[in-house]
Amino acid sequence: MSRYFSEKYSALTPYVPGEQPKEMQYIKLNTNESPFPPSPRACEMAARAAQSLQLYSDPTCARLSEAVARALRVEPSEVLLTNGSDEILNFAFMAFCDEKHPAVFADITYGFYEVFAELHRIPYRRIPLQEDFRIQIEDYFGLHSTIFLANPNAPTGIALSPSEIEQILVRNPDSIVVVDEAYVDFGAESCVPLIHKYDNLLVTQTFSKSRSLAGGRLGFGVASRALIADLNTIKYSTNPYNVNSMTLAAGLGTMEDAEYTARNCRAIIENREYAASALRRLGFEATDSKANFLFAKHPLLDGGALYRALKEEGILVRHFDQDRIRQYNRITVGTKEQMDVLLSVLQRILEEKA
Amino acid sequence: MSRYFSEKYSALTPYVPGEQPKEMQYIKLNTNESPFPPSPRACEMAARAAQSLQLYSDPTCARLSEAVARALRVEPSEVLLTNGSDEILNFAFMAFCDEKHPAVFADITYGFYEVFAELHRIPYRRIPLQEDFRIQIEDYFGLHSTIFLANPNAPTGIALSPSEIEQILVRNPDSIVVVDEAYVDFGAESCVPLIHKYDNLLVTQTFSKSRSLAGGRLGFGVASRALIADLNTIKYSTNPYNVNSMTLAAGLGTMEDAEYTARNCRAIIENREYAASALRRLGFEATDSKANFLFAKHPLLDGGALYRALKEEGILVRHFDQDRIRQYNRITVGTKEQMDVLLSVLQRILEEKA
Repeated sequence: MSRYFSEKYSALTPYVPGEQPKEMQYIKLNTNESPFPPSPRACEMAARAAQSLQLYSDPTCARLSEAVARALRVEPSEVLLTNGSDEILNFAFMAFCDEKHPAVFADITYGFYEVFAELHRIPYRRIPLQEDFRIQIEDYFGLHSTIFLANPNAPTGIALSPSEIEQILVRNPDSIVVVDEAYVDFGAESCVPLIHKYDNLLVTQTFSKSRSLAGGRLGFGVASRALIADLNTIKYSTNPYNVNSMTLAAGLGTMEDAEYTARNCRAIIENREYAASALRRLGFEATDSKANFLFAKHPLLDGGALYRALKEEGILVRHFDQDRIRQYNRITVGTKEQMDVLLSVLQRILEEKA
Repeated sequence: MSRYFSEKYSALTPYVPGEQPKEMQYIKLNTNESPFPPSPRACEMAARAAQSLQLYSDPTCARLSEAVARALRVEPSEVLLTNGSDEILNFAFMAFCDEKHPAVFADITYGFYEVFAELHRIPYRRIPLQEDFRIQIEDYFGLHSTIFLANPNAPTGIALSPSEIEQILVRNPDSIVVVDEAYVDFGAESCVPLIHKYDNLLVTQTFSKSRSLAGGRLGFGVASRALIADLNTIKYSTNPYNVNSMTLAAGLGTMEDAEYTARNCRAIIENREYAASALRRLGFEATDSKANFLFAKHPLLDGGALYRALKEEGILVRHFDQDRIRQYNRITVGTKEQMDVLLSVLQRILEEKA
């Protein structure tokens, strides 16, 4: 730290992204990327956009906002596109949390919520998940706080139903509820239709998972026009041209090729159920994941040791050295072939143990 | 504004980007874009990167940081790449300004400095430029504040020399001096070499102007390793994957094709001098611009009226409805053909006036 660094931020512990190895060829099951490339239409439109990068991107992201709005049956003025969904989450912490409106989220959830709260010096509280990692919705009633719910949750993959989230919305009429649907396309149900019923709901989604654009950095929020206007005030005071032209084009191509995304989601769900059954047969305990990852532990294997053993075998998974989940690993669902390699390595590790 | 919007931000006046017209074909001389497309190598590498967007971009931006560092004769650890140079400026306001370290900048300069100060509730002071829009460097001695200098300045185009900036650095040993070199490649001299002499210097640059990548959103900061580490703490607490893979590839292609950029800069400088002489012959007063724009007024023409008259003729320039510069327009330097159209329209407007 330099002697010039503001005291405001000197105690920050930044977010640590999953490893992005460069040297060795790993089977990369650690950052919940899609095993499928972007839609060919997305690639083609991005390449075309690259030809005219001398012009600024459209700060209003008009065409892509319209395409997203059409697909979600909302209005373009109810959509805000961002540089990944981390950016819309950051804007939400800024716009809707302060000393009077503390943040609340689960003790086990996306690690960035805490980082955002610390960054903006927002008071926050973590509500413990139940023993089985489920959310007890009554814990979220009448909190007088801005509530952040990852749904499905990460790294557990467990989802609430929209009717459960609706109960949380009803019991917090004066507070914003942010539903982070990064993983919603793999079997959970979206809360987007609820934005027309609840003016305190912000739903966020990403193009990084089901839509195969992690490297493009594209996310968005969906909410009432008034909330989107608040978030736009933050955007235009931060980085008006926050989404570049190639990513806008890739996003549009992806939206125009919805069947490609749907097909990939079906494949991942199938591979997830296949891998989950096989893991359970090997003696693993796995949560009921509705995401593109599994969260599993084995009674005979230490979580950290398993992470390291897999890494030595060329398979990267994600281990969180954190209370309550230290024995678990989060395993991204890849292709069937990748799952088969993983399963056979796990089987060998277990045989060596026995 | 919704009833949920934090009081912290409710009084914000966001930055207003230059118009990005979609319908009519304008000669667009209003946002200082390059008239030249990106380097073919940049386009090709971006298109290739689009093929594997399912993987996250490299959060360390390693390859591009190395290429930028090599070109600027600094170390990769002295470079931080960002989503446009607005992002590195935002990080600098966060990292190096607070109640104890107010911000200082000119009364006439890049409008975003004030927005960032307001956004982060940082106290700030504007130092008036002299009558001729030059900076009196003595005004910046011993300020005990974080100093933001656009060099060349916008919208005036007037540049300080590195030795003048060095005097400001020497007289502010306990304060950060940010030199925003968005326009430096069009005839001013960079302060990058000074980062090895002054640990309180942060230089920012952009790929949006001389490097024809405005739509790609790419900027960077150059400073001592310690300052870059501070800025990285902010980055990793905000958006670790802040630069997407296609833009990283386009940036690398641009750096590898330095002669292309240099040739474009020479053409723009030539067109600027050509247009400046012609404007002066028409009776305009123009500042001594070292940027890719001209800043000019005419004794017979109201600034706002001229902006509107040009727009009706299909030429967009930028007018700032702001004290001291209301009679001026900022005109991006385009191709020689664009300058000729502008000049002939101006001549006609003046003849109609006479």
